[in-house]
Amino acid sequence: MQLRDYIKQQDIEALFYHNTFGIEKEGLRVQTDGQVASSKHPSLFGSRTSHPYIQTDFAESQLELITPPMPSTHEAFRWLTAIHEVVLRSLKKDEYLWPLSIHTNLPAQEDIEIAQLEDQKEVDYRNYLAQKYGKTKQLMSGIHYNFQINSTVIEHLATSIKQDPKEVNNQIYFNLAKSFLTYEWILTYLFAATPFEASGNNFEKPVRSIRNSQKGYVNHKEVEISLESLPKFVESLEEMVSKGILLLEKELYSSVRFRGQESARKLLEEGIGYLEFRGFDLNPYVPYGILEKDLEFVHLFVLNLLWTSEDLSQDQVIIGKAKKEKIALSSPDQSLKDLGYLNDALGFLDQMTNMVKQLKSPYEENWLELIEEKRQELLDPKKTIVYKMLEEINRSSYAVLGLRLAKKYQALAMKEEFALKGFTNLELSTQILFFDAIQKGIKVGLLDESDQFLQLDYAGRREFVKNGNMTSKDSVSSMLAMENKVVTKKILKEAGFHVPNGQEIKNQEEARLYWQTYAGQPLVIKPKSTNYGLGITIFKVVPELADFEEAVRLAFLEDDRVLIEEFVAGTEYRFFVIEGQTKAVLLRKPANVIGDGKHTIEELVIEKNKHPYRGLGHQYPLTKIVLGEIELLNLKQEGYGAQSIPDKGQTVYLRENSNISTGGDSIDVTKQMHPSYKAIAGQAVQALQASISGIDLLIPDLSKATDIEQVQDYAIIEANFNPAMMMQVYPQEGEGRRLTMDVLEKLFPEIKK
Amino acid sequence: MQLRDYIKQQDIEALFYHNTFGIEKEGLRVQTDGQVASSKHPSLFGSRTSHPYIQTDFAESQLELITPPMPSTHEAFRWLTAIHEVVLRSLKKDEYLWPLSIHTNLPAQEDIEIAQLEDQKEVDYRNYLAQKYGKTKQLMSGIHYNFQINSTVIEHLATSIKQDPKEVNNQIYFNLAKSFLTYEWILTYLFAATPFEASGNNFEKPVRSIRNSQKGYVNHKEVEISLESLPKFVESLEEMVSKGILLLEKELYSSVRFRGQESARKLLEEGIGYLEFRGFDLNPYVPYGILEKDLEFVHLFVLNLLWTSEDLSQDQVIIGKAKKEKIALSSPDQSLKDLGYLNDALGFLDQMTNMVKQLKSPYEENWLELIEEKRQELLDPKKTIVYKMLEEINRSSYAVLGLRLAKKYQALAMKEEFALKGFTNLELSTQILFFDAIQKGIKVGLLDESDQFLQLDYAGRREFVKNGNMTSKDSVSSMLAMENKVVTKKILKEAGFHVPNGQEIKNQEEARLYWQTYAGQPLVIKPKSTNYGLGITIFKVVPELADFEEAVRLAFLEDDRVLIEEFVAGTEYRFFVIEGQTKAVLLRKPANVIGDGKHTIEELVIEKNKHPYRGLGHQYPLTKIVLGEIELLNLKQEGYGAQSIPDKGQTVYLRENSNISTGGDSIDVTKQMHPSYKAIAGQAVQALQASISGIDLLIPDLSKATDIEQVQDYAIIEANFNPAMMMQVYPQEGEGRRLTMDVLEKLFPEIKK
Repeated sequence: MQLRDYIKQQDIEALFYHNTFGIEKEGLRVQTDGQVASSKHPSLFGSRTSHPYIQTDFAESQLELITPPMPSTHEAFRWLTAIHEVVLRSLKKDEYLWPLSIHTNLPAQEDIEIAQLEDQKEVDYRNYLAQKYGKTKQLMSGIHYNFQINSTVIEHLATSIKQDPKEVNNQIYFNLAKSFLTYEWILTYLFAATPFEASGNNFEKPVRSIRNSQKGYVNHKEVEISLESLPKFVESLEEMVSKGILLLEKELYSSVRFRGQESARKLLEEGIGYLEFRGFDLNPYVPYGILEKDLEFVHLFVLNLLWTSEDLSQDQVIIGKAKKEKIALSSPDQSLKDLGYLNDALGFLDQMTNMVKQLKSPYEENWLELIEEKRQELLDPKKTIVYKMLEEINRSSYAVLGLRLAKKYQALAMKEEFALKGFTNLELSTQILFFDAIQKGIKVGLLDESDQFLQLDYAGRREFVKNGNMTSKDSVSSMLAMENKVVTKKILKEAGFHVPNGQEIKNQEEARLYWQTYAGQPLVIKPKSTNYGLGITIFKVVPELADFEEAVRLAFLEDDRVLIEEFVAGTEYRFFVIEGQTKAVLLRKPANVIGDGKHTIEELVIEKNKHPYRGLGHQYPLTKIVLGEIELLNLKQEGYGAQSIPDKGQTVYLRENSNISTGGDSIDVTKQMHPSYKAIAGQAVQALQASISGIDLLIPDLSKATDIEQVQDYAIIEANFNPAMMMQVYPQEGEGRRLTMDVLEKLFPEIKK
Repeated sequence: MQLRDYIKQQDIEALFYHNTFGIEKEGLRVQTDGQVASSKHPSLFGSRTSHPYIQTDFAESQLELITPPMPSTHEAFRWLTAIHEVVLRSLKKDEYLWPLSIHTNLPAQEDIEIAQLEDQKEVDYRNYLAQKYGKTKQLMSGIHYNFQINSTVIEHLATSIKQDPKEVNNQIYFNLAKSFLTYEWILTYLFAATPFEASGNNFEKPVRSIRNSQKGYVNHKEVEISLESLPKFVESLEEMVSKGILLLEKELYSSVRFRGQESARKLLEEGIGYLEFRGFDLNPYVPYGILEKDLEFVHLFVLNLLWTSEDLSQDQVIIGKAKKEKIALSSPDQSLKDLGYLNDALGFLDQMTNMVKQLKSPYEENWLELIEEKRQELLDPKKTIVYKMLEEINRSSYAVLGLRLAKKYQALAMKEEFALKGFTNLELSTQILFFDAIQKGIKVGLLDESDQFLQLDYAGRREFVKNGNMTSKDSVSSMLAMENKVVTKKILKEAGFHVPNGQEIKNQEEARLYWQTYAGQPLVIKPKSTNYGLGITIFKVVPELADFEEAVRLAFLEDDRVLIEEFVAGTEYRFFVIEGQTKAVLLRKPANVIGDGKHTIEELVIEKNKHPYRGLGHQYPLTKIVLGEIELLNLKQEGYGAQSIPDKGQTVYLRENSNISTGGDSIDVTKQMHPSYKAIAGQAVQALQASISGIDLLIPDLSKATDIEQVQDYAIIEANFNPAMMMQVYPQEGEGRRLTMDVLEKLFPEIKK
């Protein structure tokens, strides 16, 4: 039974178009002058041996970006985006990623350094390839598109027609590979983007895709591989290797590869896992080498091959390959009509349209639009990528085009350098940790995106992380101890730290006991719940009893529970501690603007909000200041309005609280803070038996040496088990502290620094 | 300046009456025939060497219960209650705690076993005492009342009068001791309860308090101790030891002891820490040997001594002691008036009343009542404890009185054996863990009672525990993984366990994809939020597509999010797992009654609710069934009403859910459950990287062997990081499993079993 008929009969169209995808993208690192970079593979990427996302291809300067297998082209593209951004932002200053598949100004062969992998076999193989094919060819880059058919469909079909599932699987994949080769010329026409050879000769006679032609990445003529059947394919490949025509099976260069097993023989025995389509030139006009919608178009293209399930002969495959060669070497302005292939191509797209209309998918409209767009490109070569490239090359040069785009994409990547594009829906701290994990080659699984829940695999261990900082390093009991302010204070006090004395009282009698116990301390008296600060009295110097009792009375007017707390002078600092070590110290200031004598407060707020770090929600290092009710009330109390023009240099506060979430400033003071306070913060977190904590201290003088017993020098306010790391990684002022990397290094000390 | 004047001047009365208290209570273990128990100190109490709460005193059969120092008599009494309950419930069957200070039917001297402590020096000392004073005297038991003055008061006073705080401290304590000795006779009169000697002779001539007389626990005549001043006291005591009249300083038997330092000399150098008042006979008429209000009366008694601060001579002390001796040896029916002490005693109480009226305390009324009650006892000897004892002894016998009360208190302790009296405000699981900690000698600190937050100290380590099961053994990430049902399922599924396939869908299209993916499975379809089960469809056999779609449509009528889940047949069991080991398995049944053909459902519910395990709130192993709206609706659907009379043996369910909190039954099935399911539960919890978890499995046949891959044999529903242990410790049916002890043993493997 044909796959199509089975799908329609079983009404399992949705299963048919839910498949698995993976993308690999190669690209050269280049210098600011456009020359191939002579630097080593960036050490920031840690070990290449096991890096799942960032590898070197043939040359030391040739990066390979690899997405994990994903259940949709959309998901695969998110990963491509993210890995790509990590790479761009991890390159050393003045290095770029060459956006073209071919570099026409390569160094001399002897100056091209082969990738210095740890595995000597891999280095030897690259030396062999360099000798046999020349280094120039090996430096061509492109996109590989991995496609896995939904295994449920194959299993159900096999059960239904009572055949061995492995047989059915291999038959389907083998036929798909043949039909892909037969019709690949359509994709070559659409995605071609290598008009010139790497040698840089022949600039006068551009073609569509050198890389997809016989001048590209192909085996020598004596390599003969059968496509009659999978067993014959395997036999012929093994023969080539045993005869020494190919060194290894993977030396076979085909634009379609059977993947998922260690050897060709295993494909037969265990089954083909997926197909790799290797013919895609880098699209220089888009930042990541290919568009998400083009990934989906290729998906539809492949679906149509499965849907029509043509039983193609080897000869038909050969004819298809010849068409591809002709298109690859045709002039970019030559039309398909001139080449005589237009009707075939349009016919294929009609089939695709026809299929799409039968799939009853919610994406139908988008798909039809996509097909229509490509139809227009088939009709008009001026709409193709390679044609557009030539227009610009004619105006400037190939090298200028490449360098312009390389720098453009680099600048784009640095624009919101805090965010991990592709995953900007995550909270920022999780984005940053995710970024660092990709950089270091830690495998990331998204257990629950909306809950910021990641799974990390590295060095043979698995860790679960929520919010970027809640890990296996902290215990439930330490988290709960930090969550409960009463408990936090009790533990810290017993351990000898200074915490402000404080008590919740129900009546004047209890107030008096507090007074008698802590007589002689400055105090804050406040209703347990307060509105706009009503009922709060702050005694910065020790009050008289009568004044104290009056303050308690006023507080009880607002609530039936009143809090009395020791008033501790000083500025509040956030210490980020991991395993007893203070990694960063932050000062937060309430939302404010600084006058220039010209602009109104409203204008100053608008200006301040333009900083790229400021946004709304949990995706930015800082929050935009709003001129809301509370802010206006605050301004009024200070004698301002939104239209006031503060004096030059005058700081106007719009809030009393210093939270970042209400527009506060963040200022890193890690260097300025005296080490003795850092030690106290670290010890306090250890007393709480916690590993990771953001602990807040009030300190009158951050530059003065102190010790734990100096109650006048500091007071610990609270400890947070889920501290917002992003504000310390990307502070408004001062040096950012890569706390996310500190977390990863605690989870996986094996990380290569 | 006098303490009283200073307090009044500074208006710190509340500080004055907030002091620290600790209680020690001795008592003999006896057998069911009233004879002193010949068994060893119960091994349940773990090691005696470091047990902070339960020790042996002189003899192996003589228990000593010790409360920690507490900030009020109320708190100290709670601890006395709790420790007492632990002791009673830990005694072996047919052992009791003798409620009288003196046992008149002791074994022969040679048959009294000295406490077999690990420290040989302690054993040697006891042997020395036995030889010198005879074992009989050493077996007298009583209550020691430890009193510490609020140190803030002493420090403030010292600062105010510019004297050395240590000097002031020692002066106040030394004077207090002297005035206590001078007026102790009043307490002797009130609390006397040892009418007969241990020898059992002289039953015809009862006295008030043998124990407080020279026939009690006193040193030999040659012991001469000065009370002229603290230095002289220390010198004279050291002299007694150096002369060999006393073996150790602690051999000095006074009804007041200076405490808080290792030696008398240290008292001088470092300061007296607190006083120990040792004269209280056990009150046999109350379960714990003394009443809470009597602890507070003694507090007021002592406060009055401080308040009046008489400067007493040694002679006055000697006169006071003589009065005490006279009262101790007077006949219980002899009045104070006859003895010539009434006016002095009433005068003292008048002073107390006077003081109380000046303290401006919220407890004033209670205190005055308390003083009035004691005044009545001073006026009428028939109201004293010892008089009441004699009435009963005259009717039966001393031995019968003791045994009757011993058995009564034992039965009382077993009445709600699940609860820890004194701390029944805590949730039950925390009460049980607290009980076990006291039993094993783990020091417990209540960090936050309302938050069930305990601090445990043992073997040199500190642990924080919330809800009895959230500890340092579990990581934050594993807790969060269990909290998030999506994440739990993903992790378990990836690790190879069977979890029901399930998905949240937004529209029919997504429903179709689910259908196509999981075709051929029984299903449950339900609105994400449901009222009274509206919109739920359960397909226990695989439905047709049309029926499936109709069910989805109905669900969408109730909510815009619909859950589709694989229907898994089977009974739900709760597995309690610690570190990979299943410790208990529980079956829960929805609230139900079983008919007897006579009573209405309402009557059956009332009857079932009488079980002592059933209560309301988190303080009971089971919850009372209520006949509320949901229950009545449920009955109606089954064709019943509250007044229906079900047939004999007919089970009528009042609920669909089996939660204990809605009246469900709990049945331990640990033995019945096949080990292979226990292994699966343990492995699943380990896959979640969790230590403690209550994991719920659906199992069709608990007796059948299985393995992880047998998807038809089980399905994991969810894992709970905060499982209710109390329902498995005290199930309605089957054996209780002491999970709290398992938790403690994981936290402190050093616990002696």
